[in-house]
Amino acid sequence: MKRIAILGPGLLGGSLALALGRLEGVEVRMWGRREEVLREAVERGMAGRVSVSVREVVEGADTVVLCVPVGAMGGLVKEALPAISRDCLVTDVGSVKGAVVRELGPLLEGRALFVGSHPMAGSEKAGLGAARADLFEGAVSILTPVRETESEAVERVELLWKAVGARVRVLEPEVHDRFCAQISHVPHVVASALVNAVLDAAPEAFGFAGSGFRDTTRVAGGLPGMWSEILDWNEGEVVLGLRGVVRQLEGVIGILESKEGSRVSRLHAFLEKAKAGRDRLKTN
Amino acid sequence: MKRIAILGPGLLGGSLALALGRLEGVEVRMWGRREEVLREAVERGMAGRVSVSVREVVEGADTVVLCVPVGAMGGLVKEALPAISRDCLVTDVGSVKGAVVRELGPLLEGRALFVGSHPMAGSEKAGLGAARADLFEGAVSILTPVRETESEAVERVELLWKAVGARVRVLEPEVHDRFCAQISHVPHVVASALVNAVLDAAPEAFGFAGSGFRDTTRVAGGLPGMWSEILDWNEGEVVLGLRGVVRQLEGVIGILESKEGSRVSRLHAFLEKAKAGRDRLKTN
Repeated sequence: MKRIAILGPGLLGGSLALALGRLEGVEVRMWGRREEVLREAVERGMAGRVSVSVREVVEGADTVVLCVPVGAMGGLVKEALPAISRDCLVTDVGSVKGAVVRELGPLLEGRALFVGSHPMAGSEKAGLGAARADLFEGAVSILTPVRETESEAVERVELLWKAVGARVRVLEPEVHDRFCAQISHVPHVVASALVNAVLDAAPEAFGFAGSGFRDTTRVAGGLPGMWSEILDWNEGEVVLGLRGVVRQLEGVIGILESKEGSRVSRLHAFLEKAKAGRDRLKTN
Repeated sequence: MKRIAILGPGLLGGSLALALGRLEGVEVRMWGRREEVLREAVERGMAGRVSVSVREVVEGADTVVLCVPVGAMGGLVKEALPAISRDCLVTDVGSVKGAVVRELGPLLEGRALFVGSHPMAGSEKAGLGAARADLFEGAVSILTPVRETESEAVERVELLWKAVGARVRVLEPEVHDRFCAQISHVPHVVASALVNAVLDAAPEAFGFAGSGFRDTTRVAGGLPGMWSEILDWNEGEVVLGLRGVVRQLEGVIGILESKEGSRVSRLHAFLEKAKAGRDRLKTN
């Protein structure tokens, strides 16, 4: 019997619990701060054992998965540490990896097997109510081992994600953070900036928004609490990424203000490059 | 029998032809530059009469709809003018209205009934092959009359769009251009800038892009030829809109670089404002 302790009954923790609960020989346990959410988890058959005491939940567990906001991980690990066994695998599902690995790695070194994970699955919907067993099916889960990471930790966390249907990729934490800034954190800020720019300049224009505007800004509907924390924890890469976007936009402003005969062809080249890049996404 | 001449056999012209062709007592005619495209239009039953001569197509028509790129409209109207009758309704489907109305209005004044239209329907797919009879169903078509516009022109163009299922709104050409810059032209540049920023900084990150990045950048797959022209014709409002977005992004960069304790709550406020704005789109 595998005992897997899921700390944090949100969208990711709940979905992981549902997916793992389908497997043979797995006991799912769940920790949360609020009794009523844990009761809901039990009612939905997500966990056999739940508690508001983290030590009670991790005691005797083979695997611990941190599914709380990245800012809460360090404190929770310190609280759980006395009850975590030496051969327990600890991983997390945070969207930022450099800062998390730098914080949790030293705390857990020699005390458990730790490697960071980032399952790239989610939704604008959040909370246990949005959890579903197939959330990780076909998703990519990025593992971020570092030099000190024991190979057993990587092997075991790989099995965990594969068991719930995810494909696994390995990146250094800093490379993970750069890539995720580019394809997720910066686009989130940009989508929000587009909405706020319309609100500031011409809010009546919203009444004319079509599917293009809806798609371009969809992610701006995500949870401000979660996203402000992600941006805060990945500040360096987010700032670099935002500067890159600002440079691109200033390039276009420069072309439009140039009044040169070559203006349309320069705009065309900018848009053509983007189209070629975007079209590649369709196939890979 | 109503005779409607559609000039330009692309996505909008073809779709309009298909939608009008379903109505009783309407003869659809079509002009295009290329014989083979006109043959395709005839094969798909889009038009009863086609020609590469614009005068032949507009001769005796009650209504002329310009469905060519905005940069080609003036030349085409000059070519057609001798064959257009005084009570003919002329409209266009251009995405930019200020420049188009300023160019076509004087050409057509006293020569025909002219009012600009912008049916807000489309697709990343283009060309006659993508045309469909229901493209305008439920779409908004914006009419942009000016002081000189005869009321009969507005009434008749309203009937035209309602006949193909569109709802009609009226805006001044300059207001139309400001709104469309905000909700369409600027988002198009921003989506393209996001793609180009990733291409320049970390092209390998594309391999990790999920549904968020796909949605945020979907419109960047649009036709560079069409969009470079739209940006060129609406330069003033596009530059203003882009500056607004750059200001928002620089605001976020400033917060992230401030290292103040209030940083997360300031990020939260920025994201919260955007979420509230974006959530409003779901219902109206």
